[in-house]
Amino acid sequence: MDTNQTKIMGKQSLKFANPPYILAASSIAGKKEGEGPLGQLFDVVEQDPLVGKQTWEEAESEFMRKAAVKALEKAGLQNSDIRYLVGGDLLGQLIATSFGVAELEIPMLGIFGACSTMGEGMAIGSILVDGGFADKVMAVTSSHFAGAEKQFRFPLDYGNQRPYSASWTVTGSGAVILANSNTQGENMNASIVVAGTTIGKIVDYGIKDSMNMGAAMAPAAYETIKQNFEDFGIDPSYYDKIITGDLGYVGQKILIDMLKEKNYDISSNHMDCGIEIFNQEDQDTHAGGSGCGCSAITFGAYICKQLREGAWKRVLFVPTGALLSQVSFNEGNTIPCIAHAVMVERR
Amino acid sequence: MDTNQTKIMGKQSLKFANPPYILAASSIAGKKEGEGPLGQLFDVVEQDPLVGKQTWEEAESEFMRKAAVKALEKAGLQNSDIRYLVGGDLLGQLIATSFGVAELEIPMLGIFGACSTMGEGMAIGSILVDGGFADKVMAVTSSHFAGAEKQFRFPLDYGNQRPYSASWTVTGSGAVILANSNTQGENMNASIVVAGTTIGKIVDYGIKDSMNMGAAMAPAAYETIKQNFEDFGIDPSYYDKIITGDLGYVGQKILIDMLKEKNYDISSNHMDCGIEIFNQEDQDTHAGGSGCGCSAITFGAYICKQLREGAWKRVLFVPTGALLSQVSFNEGNTIPCIAHAVMVERR
Repeated sequence: MDTNQTKIMGKQSLKFANPPYILAASSIAGKKEGEGPLGQLFDVVEQDPLVGKQTWEEAESEFMRKAAVKALEKAGLQNSDIRYLVGGDLLGQLIATSFGVAELEIPMLGIFGACSTMGEGMAIGSILVDGGFADKVMAVTSSHFAGAEKQFRFPLDYGNQRPYSASWTVTGSGAVILANSNTQGENMNASIVVAGTTIGKIVDYGIKDSMNMGAAMAPAAYETIKQNFEDFGIDPSYYDKIITGDLGYVGQKILIDMLKEKNYDISSNHMDCGIEIFNQEDQDTHAGGSGCGCSAITFGAYICKQLREGAWKRVLFVPTGALLSQVSFNEGNTIPCIAHAVMVERR
Repeated sequence: MDTNQTKIMGKQSLKFANPPYILAASSIAGKKEGEGPLGQLFDVVEQDPLVGKQTWEEAESEFMRKAAVKALEKAGLQNSDIRYLVGGDLLGQLIATSFGVAELEIPMLGIFGACSTMGEGMAIGSILVDGGFADKVMAVTSSHFAGAEKQFRFPLDYGNQRPYSASWTVTGSGAVILANSNTQGENMNASIVVAGTTIGKIVDYGIKDSMNMGAAMAPAAYETIKQNFEDFGIDPSYYDKIITGDLGYVGQKILIDMLKEKNYDISSNHMDCGIEIFNQEDQDTHAGGSGCGCSAITFGAYICKQLREGAWKRVLFVPTGALLSQVSFNEGNTIPCIAHAVMVERR
């Protein structure tokens, strides 16, 4: 343990002196996500959107419970092996999380960062492990298409039309287990670590259109990615991939353009989980996927796999969140956004 | 810096090797709170519940903004001196926080623990400072009577009756600044530190009555306090005060009884912020005060003062949260609860 290594980098970033290992990352996906390009990679594809429950909220909790249990199974651990759980979701008062993970009885830190939640959870989890506050931590999040529509937009039965700038909330949940040693789990032969993080600020460019979240969130992704470059003194070529959470096609273009104005060209190595998860041609998902689950299940199913197999060595994982509620939207407010970046590397 | 000192204690607790100093703790209270027993102690008492804004949500954001600015002022700091802000509130998707602190432009970690939020925020903030991840962190939270009634219960205009077991959501916001040195701020001559923390688990005893939150939350407080005693090998006499957030009269009795069954007698040194903040006789607040703001402004105005003046040396501050939403309540679900304990000491 080298405790002398600098931890604080620049204005917003941390470089971990003892980078936590990712023992396992799970992905429980819904039916539509299972029919998308990543379908074969998910741990489980649930055919029933209610997974046997009575309400959309209970169904989302069940997705999260399954993701947590699957991550434990992949890491060869029991719930009692996890010292702290860091988790959250999109629903008011985080009920998907509270009802989803209660039975695991793991001391818990509830977090909210909208769709940036997996970034925030992995950042806090890494801080706990790097700082010697925990040997093993789980970060978990979820989203559910029907629960999110009910929470933020219209009842499904209303059948409202969606503009092409709108995204489709992913039904799914992912959990990541971080640890201070790499003696077990699915990445045992690869050493996949969280090397650092850049904690985002709230960014609000005044956009009010909740059917165009990509445009609202792109400036938050821009600020965090630019700060990561500055804080570490690096440029886009440092990473094999720079991966945002759910900007979709509209937000991706804005992000690339904004960074280009600062002479950072990420056009060749940018990837967005919301773009990867659905087929734009035939899945009718318009701007792409969104929701906490979008980046979470893409991370477990695809990003971790690419690192494990050596296809990528270093990625910047930047889940993006729009911090609106139906109340703030109905009261005519803007959409404040945030993005947290996590540097994930194969060592 | 003694990095060899044990940090991990027992099952759920941390003992800080480099206990963070509390530089300042602010308290912005509403009119009714200003008329209560602690009225003279608050930094500011706002006479207008809307503080000049158009909606209850915007008003709560303004309370939080004022609390953050006041804490900076008391600590002699600028917003740019704070490396990370850890904050949250009761409203769906934390809109009081997102709109309240955005203009401060401090990198932010959004948290949700219902009324346990100040406990969670001070715990995470202390971890960041103790672990060398930040020199200065702000923890902030708020609640607003009218916003909470609108969110969780009935419109105010409906004028519904309240059972005696119901609590009254506090209108107010408090912020705490944690730092790795004690060279400035209101406690400069006292050295008030966060010595340790016990992170709570979700506890659900099956209570469904949202008009009796004290009974729902008492078991969560019980579990966390008992675990704190066990993890540190101490008993109630270790503390001058054991201070819960908002159990009120009903919850206090349950908590004392539950701990007595385990041979822990806290009847002589227990205090509840919800009981302290209002006069039961003439303020019509029934079981007591509640809400994230209840423990937050009591901490800044009263608890910190008692420590600063030497009246108390060691307190266990245990904000308690009920993790329900109006959706989970309307769907007939139970009320899962959580409590996070923070050990605050005068050194």
